Amino acid sequence: MDTATSPPPLSLETSPDRYHHWKLSFDGPIATLSMDVQEDAGLSPDYRLKLNSYDLGVDIELADAVQRLRFEHPEVHAVVITSLKERIFCAGANIFMLRGSTHVWKINFCKFTNETRLAIEDASQHSGLKFLAAVNGICAGGGYELALACDEIFLVDDGNSAVSLPETPLLGVLPGTGGLTRVVDKRKVRRDLADVFGTVAEGIKGKRAVEWRLVDAVYPTSQFKERVAMRAQALARQSDRPAAGPGITLGPLGADTRDDGVSYSSVMLDIDRGKRVATLTVRGPEIDEPATPEAIAAAGDRFWPLRAFRELDDALLRLRINEPLIGTVVVKTEGDAARVLAVDETLVRHADHWLVREIVLFIKRTLKRMDLTSRSFFALVEPGSCYAGTLFELALAADRSYMLDDPDRPNTIAMSVMNGGPLKMSNGLTRLETRFLGQPEHVGELLADIAPLDAREAHNAGLVSFAPDELDWDDEVRLAIESRAAFSPDALTGMEANLRFAGPETMETKIFGRLTAWQNWIFQRPNAVGEKGALTAYGSQARPEFDFKRT
Amino acid sequence: MDTATSPPPLSLETSPDRYHHWKLSFDGPIATLSMDVQEDAGLSPDYRLKLNSYDLGVDIELADAVQRLRFEHPEVHAVVITSLKERIFCAGANIFMLRGSTHVWKINFCKFTNETRLAIEDASQHSGLKFLAAVNGICAGGGYELALACDEIFLVDDGNSAVSLPETPLLGVLPGTGGLTRVVDKRKVRRDLADVFGTVAEGIKGKRAVEWRLVDAVYPTSQFKERVAMRAQALARQSDRPAAGPGITLGPLGADTRDDGVSYSSVMLDIDRGKRVATLTVRGPEIDEPATPEAIAAAGDRFWPLRAFRELDDALLRLRINEPLIGTVVVKTEGDAARVLAVDETLVRHADHWLVREIVLFIKRTLKRMDLTSRSFFALVEPGSCYAGTLFELALAADRSYMLDDPDRPNTIAMSVMNGGPLKMSNGLTRLETRFLGQPEHVGELLADIAPLDAREAHNAGLVSFAPDELDWDDEVRLAIESRAAFSPDALTGMEANLRFAGPETMETKIFGRLTAWQNWIFQRPNAVGEKGALTAYGSQARPEFDFKRT
Repeated sequence: MDTATSPPPLSLETSPDRYHHWKLSFDGPIATLSMDVQEDAGLSPDYRLKLNSYDLGVDIELADAVQRLRFEHPEVHAVVITSLKERIFCAGANIFMLRGSTHVWKINFCKFTNETRLAIEDASQHSGLKFLAAVNGICAGGGYELALACDEIFLVDDGNSAVSLPETPLLGVLPGTGGLTRVVDKRKVRRDLADVFGTVAEGIKGKRAVEWRLVDAVYPTSQFKERVAMRAQALARQSDRPAAGPGITLGPLGADTRDDGVSYSSVMLDIDRGKRVATLTVRGPEIDEPATPEAIAAAGDRFWPLRAFRELDDALLRLRINEPLIGTVVVKTEGDAARVLAVDETLVRHADHWLVREIVLFIKRTLKRMDLTSRSFFALVEPGSCYAGTLFELALAADRSYMLDDPDRPNTIAMSVMNGGPLKMSNGLTRLETRFLGQPEHVGELLADIAPLDAREAHNAGLVSFAPDELDWDDEVRLAIESRAAFSPDALTGMEANLRFAGPETMETKIFGRLTAWQNWIFQRPNAVGEKGALTAYGSQARPEFDFKRT
Repeated sequence: MDTATSPPPLSLETSPDRYHHWKLSFDGPIATLSMDVQEDAGLSPDYRLKLNSYDLGVDIELADAVQRLRFEHPEVHAVVITSLKERIFCAGANIFMLRGSTHVWKINFCKFTNETRLAIEDASQHSGLKFLAAVNGICAGGGYELALACDEIFLVDDGNSAVSLPETPLLGVLPGTGGLTRVVDKRKVRRDLADVFGTVAEGIKGKRAVEWRLVDAVYPTSQFKERVAMRAQALARQSDRPAAGPGITLGPLGADTRDDGVSYSSVMLDIDRGKRVATLTVRGPEIDEPATPEAIAAAGDRFWPLRAFRELDDALLRLRINEPLIGTVVVKTEGDAARVLAVDETLVRHADHWLVREIVLFIKRTLKRMDLTSRSFFALVEPGSCYAGTLFELALAADRSYMLDDPDRPNTIAMSVMNGGPLKMSNGLTRLETRFLGQPEHVGELLADIAPLDAREAHNAGLVSFAPDELDWDDEVRLAIESRAAFSPDALTGMEANLRFAGPETMETKIFGRLTAWQNWIFQRPNAVGEKGALTAYGSQARPEFDFKRT
């Protein structure tokens, strides 16, 4: 049994002035995000980030840059992602980092990088920020997967630069950051050509890369910059973002970390390592929040929904990365439901305003981050809680919910329009639709009458799992938490990953379901990570040796 | 490197007179398939099949019974699946069998049992044969997964009998034979209730099982048989199968096995263990095949498409189970394309006849078995081949295809209506639609003009991957096969599982993608299969010990 203490906690916060690996520059509606990875600035001194290869630290900066472009630079309408290195776009995830990582770290790393790429696609699809990959050099593995997340890919035709997914032939693993899925599902490369592409370590370049749909265009070096600039302008013209700023500044979260948790202004994460249980508390607004776009812009990152969900996002990431032994998260809310519902009304009324749109999309992404966090979530609905509208999504995202039914202590939940569409899961359904897959008409009924529901009403409506009375509450909740802690963490991860995503699959869920689950399997296989596995052997003189049994 | 020879080859053929574990009885339009597992008749003497638990041998009989009901008993319109054991319906897959199995065996076992359950659903959905699970006792794990594959589930209400999925709490693995998927996607159990159900080892019984949608009805013991009989009659009335027989008899395949392969009348599988390559050859019809339903019925299992695809199905299963070290399968066809196309025309013209329908559905299932076989398939299209219509699906199912372009040796492929709909993949698309996901209009163009295409035409139409000329052919094909054999078998399995299923996911593909991939991961984890893992500890005095890190 592993009872080792966790590694020193990693902070996920950064800002452009602290970037080691990316340069952000602006030219009217076009921003350029240039990769220039600093070899010796990896998260660990055990590897060097050569050839624009990346580790989690590089991706944290990328995620931050994309986020800040959305909030801080509404005047930016298109983003060019390129490299400042000569003849190298990006060599993908650093192999020596992967080789030296624990299984848990590999999985967390891939999950975060997948979320970052999906955030790029979310910005393009929902907030009018278009992305062009200007592949000005060798583009391998995760480098090509980053390009795949962009709307379009231009490749320089210099006789040398190719796109490739060399994971299978060189490393015995998959291109697991969405690569296999996006090649056939997003770019719709023919499956037999994708098969060839996925086994040709040197990749595909020039005209053939266009013919196979791997890139959108190739241009000789002499024309490349100009073509990229022209196309970025054209993409920018598709945007519906404001013609000019200002944006709002995303300031530091001011996380107050301590050994047994972290606190922010509206979110608290309390860790009980002995029981392997964390308590995650989200506090509702404590004042009447601004209700007009102007006032919201003036409040900036202090506006409660943005502030609370940024804090929640950070807390979830810290939990994932720094607290692997915490298996169960008890979710609580505190505060005034009426104020939450008032904020929801503001978000819905001004949904077309660029900043409100960004805030709602951010809440959506954070809730998806929760759906994809491999811990058991139990929501407790107790007197004093404020599970209303957007915050009720926390209960819907949980694996179970318990609501106290005590006539002497009023306790209600409430729906809002926010439960009816703006916060869709990655399967393309709302959490209510997913929950009531077998009774689609029930969703409409619930949203038609959004009066607060007490515990019996909520239970009868199927909105909470259990509604124990005051005599049973303590025992029932305690037993549920204790028995959860005794189960195999792997079986729980697999079970939750299956039960949470009922209904349709999308490219996004395929990446986390089909692709990631296979990759996780391969990351356990001796053929990859064993003493003579391909990932272990890479870069050494030794050739990998395989057990050739097919599974 | 594992170069151990394979275990003694297992035959997949059986027939009712040889069943150890199932009894088949008939009462007009109702057949009853009763589980009565013989403890000491498992495939291995290392475990006893107590409490109607099953191993692969039990499932081979079940698959055979379902198949024979379809072909041999068209007068059967509904099937009751029940148990002859007192107070036990089925305890699921035998744990001691699982514990003692290699990883490869576990995966193959689960894949076959999944295919058997999907064949039950295929019979219900497409050939009008309805299934009622009469759960007359304890129904755990794989037992409940079998019930889930039926159209309806009746549970006896005797104060004791429950349905359960105890895999996670007791064994640290998943209910991986479709259980988690079918609970939320087919029966649409609310995800939080499914979460509770999946962690309560003793299961759910009585009224609550109905309320949670886990079963369709519960009846006291005194009424159970009568209610089952009544409901089976009602289900039978929904069927569009013929009012009376006769069916056709599925005779023995007459497989001619030898150390380096197996031959049938129209299929040959030649094994080259040194190169880890098999050659799978399918021969087209050698006579003018019958063209009317009456003549087809008279020909019975000698009718070429049924015969050839039964042989192909058997060959694929033998390959999977008996030849784990074969990584690449070279697919060939031989014969007269005109005769294949004539058969296709017959199959299409008489598609509504029950027997023709069954034959087409069988071809469809066999091709799906190929899609799900974790080996690389390379189709070779050479002079003398007959890749036409239904047999062209073999090239479309392959990971790649090579077509010889030699003006001196005529060589063509051809489409037929069979490529346009009857043989859909498990993702709900035809293989042409999946192949041309990015050019849906191209599929219609190809099917509008189904004249034979030579190598250049086929290559230009995107129907084959490569069309080397006679000078390059030998080297190009040899190199492709040799380089494939050098790659990690696990990475290839994962890559193929991702590239083959572009486009939408269905409940069926979710079972093999999301659920199976997670289960395969868990089947590798020390928390399940390690010295102190839950699967290892089950049934002993020892309690499992977990590494509680969440992944």
